Amino acid sequence: MMRKRPRIVIVGGGFGGIACARQLGGADADVLLLDRRNHSLFTPLLYQVATAALSPSDIAEPIRKALGRWKNIRVQMAEVTGVDSAAREVTVKDGAPISYDYLVLATGSDYDYFGHDDWRTHAPGLKTVNEARVIRQRLLLSYEQAEATDDPDLRRALLTHVVVGGGPTGVEMAGAMVELGRHMIPRDFRNIRPADLRVMLIEAGPRLLSAFPEELSDYARDYLVRHGVEVVTNTPVEAMTDSSVTMGGETIQVGSVVWGAGVRGSPAAQWLGVQTHRGNRMPVARDMTVEGYPGIYALGDTAAMPADDGKPLPALAQVAKQQGEHLGRALRALIERGEPVPAFTFRNRGNTAVVGRNAAVFDFGKRRMKGRLAWYLWALVHVYLLINAEKRVLVTIQWVWRYLTRQRGARLIDETPPQVPAATSPGVAPKPEVH
Amino acid sequence: MMRKRPRIVIVGGGFGGIACARQLGGADADVLLLDRRNHSLFTPLLYQVATAALSPSDIAEPIRKALGRWKNIRVQMAEVTGVDSAAREVTVKDGAPISYDYLVLATGSDYDYFGHDDWRTHAPGLKTVNEARVIRQRLLLSYEQAEATDDPDLRRALLTHVVVGGGPTGVEMAGAMVELGRHMIPRDFRNIRPADLRVMLIEAGPRLLSAFPEELSDYARDYLVRHGVEVVTNTPVEAMTDSSVTMGGETIQVGSVVWGAGVRGSPAAQWLGVQTHRGNRMPVARDMTVEGYPGIYALGDTAAMPADDGKPLPALAQVAKQQGEHLGRALRALIERGEPVPAFTFRNRGNTAVVGRNAAVFDFGKRRMKGRLAWYLWALVHVYLLINAEKRVLVTIQWVWRYLTRQRGARLIDETPPQVPAATSPGVAPKPEVH
Repeated sequence: MMRKRPRIVIVGGGFGGIACARQLGGADADVLLLDRRNHSLFTPLLYQVATAALSPSDIAEPIRKALGRWKNIRVQMAEVTGVDSAAREVTVKDGAPISYDYLVLATGSDYDYFGHDDWRTHAPGLKTVNEARVIRQRLLLSYEQAEATDDPDLRRALLTHVVVGGGPTGVEMAGAMVELGRHMIPRDFRNIRPADLRVMLIEAGPRLLSAFPEELSDYARDYLVRHGVEVVTNTPVEAMTDSSVTMGGETIQVGSVVWGAGVRGSPAAQWLGVQTHRGNRMPVARDMTVEGYPGIYALGDTAAMPADDGKPLPALAQVAKQQGEHLGRALRALIERGEPVPAFTFRNRGNTAVVGRNAAVFDFGKRRMKGRLAWYLWALVHVYLLINAEKRVLVTIQWVWRYLTRQRGARLIDETPPQVPAATSPGVAPKPEVH
Repeated sequence: MMRKRPRIVIVGGGFGGIACARQLGGADADVLLLDRRNHSLFTPLLYQVATAALSPSDIAEPIRKALGRWKNIRVQMAEVTGVDSAAREVTVKDGAPISYDYLVLATGSDYDYFGHDDWRTHAPGLKTVNEARVIRQRLLLSYEQAEATDDPDLRRALLTHVVVGGGPTGVEMAGAMVELGRHMIPRDFRNIRPADLRVMLIEAGPRLLSAFPEELSDYARDYLVRHGVEVVTNTPVEAMTDSSVTMGGETIQVGSVVWGAGVRGSPAAQWLGVQTHRGNRMPVARDMTVEGYPGIYALGDTAAMPADDGKPLPALAQVAKQQGEHLGRALRALIERGEPVPAFTFRNRGNTAVVGRNAAVFDFGKRRMKGRLAWYLWALVHVYLLINAEKRVLVTIQWVWRYLTRQRGARLIDETPPQVPAATSPGVAPKPEVH
């Protein structure tokens, strides 16, 4: 009698989900990948879309295309709304429940507004193409409006841009925003001056890049300040609107706000009813299983897996990707040869952030790097990790062009302005956090 | 006593307006270019954005960037609402009136829905980035929905795409749509077959490409039919919704509709109260002046200038560009040396349309070309005419990539679907047409 081919459902087409599916290509299983979007996004370069340096499609790949060559893999655009672990079914919006034998939750994370979800529309984060488009739109429009107005107070407000959160995303955005303005204004505008531009980077904690060694934090801060970014630490944001930010009791009028402060795991834990760690991350064992839910695995930003030191692994693309590859290979061995899923070990390839032109930082654990050489390495690594050879060539050309001319090629203001949806996961009330 | 520098206001940053402004760069005049958008668009390639082959920024250039190097030129994003020729002022939405000494109306054209303006949201045309995004979104989503459904009627409807209008835009769209589907379905989809795909090209007149010699029309038709396009001539569309088209008394369910049937001039003639020619084009003399309005010039699609045979010059990018260059040079000579504006003569560089892979047509008047060589020439000419060297390289790489792999790089479905605004020029009631 022939054994029924097991069905593996992967939820999420980010770094982890795609890596897992790729390892299962051609395996003796039916694989179904579900994502509410049709594309997988190379999010580390999304800040370059937001600052008009790259186009969305330069860093986005249709999930179908990424997995099209393997006939045992199907892809479906669907918004998952829950998991019925007793029935072994995933429930989706606008569709019949989908049954699974093995379920991989690779649903990633979203920005955490720390209880102020209404700030999301004022200060988009950098997780989706749409958010990057909204930020680009607001940035570029504020320059147009500042150029058109005769009111000096309004002009100053429009040219004040605030980035909230001093992590890699915030540092990268602030650096790119000041670079965009300083080179675009003198050439292309007549009524505004580079000195009118004000880019502020607000961090609630004591230093930028808190996940990096202090030496690299200091370097990033010095570089940004030297290039005209106002870095404000130890100062949480208290309130905001589309055109104002309040912090330290003071309210300033602004042209745009960008959010880069902390992430929280997707609601996948709430689908299962599992208590979460800090940042709404679901606790998993070293083999990525969720305790009490046989056949269900979680990985990437939405999972909290203990590292050797007992602390959870960081929410990084490289962690998700390695976990996805590990689990994909392991599930294949489990299905085809009955081998149990081995424990995962993270190999740190280096944590990095780009600070500006010719300036990046790398932390390899024992060794670290900063400055021009780190920047070249950053560029090389990111081009190498990009989707395919076409995107690599396209991005390289645009980077070289920008490096030589300081011109940005994607300064497009949409005729119908993109909008931030009010909330990405309405109706999901997270369970209280443990840990 | 120093003469006051004259002020030239150019309305419209398309082919004509940009060419005119460029010739006035560094002239002894203050030039102001107004456009409601921040970018100039290379519209001949917009169908490639709509069919996921190129990104919007590959074919869009910020107007500021195009003209930034000349300090006597200012650019302002503004929607012009009228002209007060007595006061020599242009009125704009949300701003004070703008005075001029010379006014250049280069406001282009929009698709003509022949009295059915409500069709605009069902069947977007190909004039703006937003419309191209809407078409791309609907095309790609219809494939996703067809893949997901179990209902064979719904699947067939979703995979039926209708292009209305057999001019160059319609022919290019139909060819590109069938190419997109035939190569994307077998590789990346599992539940739908290339044979399920139906692309229809509907033309009210007796033949496709009616502005071309019949030999080239026949070639285009044969090519499209051979590659699976259903070409329907002598059949006007009678009704439509977002998901259906009625023609010849029959209603078919469709996945998307694209409009490419006839253009009409912008409302610039109505700003002046001038009676228009067919297609709402404003009659102008050979020196581009509008009779009865000294100091006002009109060019490009919005103007109807008599050619040597008495018929108006066609609404083509090359006409607008040559007219803009001519007028810019002439205004400079007028202002700097008091020379009158000479009559314009159009030099036909060849009318062209691309039909599919390795297939294009060229009409040079006396000579004509079709097939693979015409296609290479088409590609060369369009790359050469593109915005700048960076865009030329980027587009070339994407074309070569697509040619080799048949893969399209910009298959992005937006998270927040783009919308077609109901009407682009609300509140303007065109005067009755003459001619």
